[in-house]
Amino acid sequence: MSAVGLDTRLTDEHHESLRLWLRLLTCTHLIETQVRKGLAAQFKTTLPRFDLMAQLERTPEGLQMGELSRRMLVTGGNVTGIVDQLERSGLIVRTEDPADRRAYLVKLTKEGRRLFAQMATEHESWIVKLLSGIPKREQRTLQESLARLRSQLTRIPS
Amino acid sequence: MSAVGLDTRLTDEHHESLRLWLRLLTCTHLIETQVRKGLAAQFKTTLPRFDLMAQLERTPEGLQMGELSRRMLVTGGNVTGIVDQLERSGLIVRTEDPADRRAYLVKLTKEGRRLFAQMATEHESWIVKLLSGIPKREQRTLQESLARLRSQLTRIPS
Repeated sequence: MSAVGLDTRLTDEHHESLRLWLRLLTCTHLIETQVRKGLAAQFKTTLPRFDLMAQLERTPEGLQMGELSRRMLVTGGNVTGIVDQLERSGLIVRTEDPADRRAYLVKLTKEGRRLFAQMATEHESWIVKLLSGIPKREQRTLQESLARLRSQLTRIPS
Repeated sequence: MSAVGLDTRLTDEHHESLRLWLRLLTCTHLIETQVRKGLAAQFKTTLPRFDLMAQLERTPEGLQMGELSRRMLVTGGNVTGIVDQLERSGLIVRTEDPADRRAYLVKLTKEGRRLFAQMATEHESWIVKLLSGIPKREQRTLQESLARLRSQLTRIPS
């Protein structure tokens, strides 16, 4: 193969990776936009608040602030600000961490769990609808490719 | 099939869609985190700024503010604030829109184009590396599935 041929091939490969990333980003962005709209319209809430409550729902024993920030899947939210708002609304509480007196844990209240369950049900139905155009078999293939990508990405030193 | 069987199947299907969405979100988030780190370390800039410059680079004739906001792929950035910062750094300019006297267009300056080209080259090499664990053939399958998802998502009325 000529040097020019190799060069072209490398460039194409680069462009393919970039195109894949842009497509991943675009799909995520389009779905996020719909979810943001649904949360605003039906629950007068935001995606970062929903995401934060989702993280707490998975850990009933509560999370320290640092760990909570690390687990958030959507960016752009100010975690301390969101915690303050949700606490004022009675949806979460701060309690002393029994394992670390200098830190506190954030947990959902009973009312927080109740509201989150409602939001989660709606959210799930939006996602099902948004992904409904992809045949189930293809969803499974996508799932597997993304699982592989994910496991590779989590091995990258940060 | 019994009613219980149907119910279980529907629930599984729901969970599968949700799992796929969370995986998509997680992969996007992990890649974004690496890109944010690279942009901060090597160019002392942010992802929303890079995204904004990328949108302008694709439209040398310039974009109105509303259109620019719509095209942004990453959320959480305040577009007017970013435009102000980039203008102060001499990387973009605001000019009168010849087609609409009440509006202005935002464009990259020559310096902005030069810096963006450098950032884009680096950015592409990060993406190639981040996706390198997925075999090329699988990348192509992913690409096609995401293309289908994207075309379905853009048909949803907003």
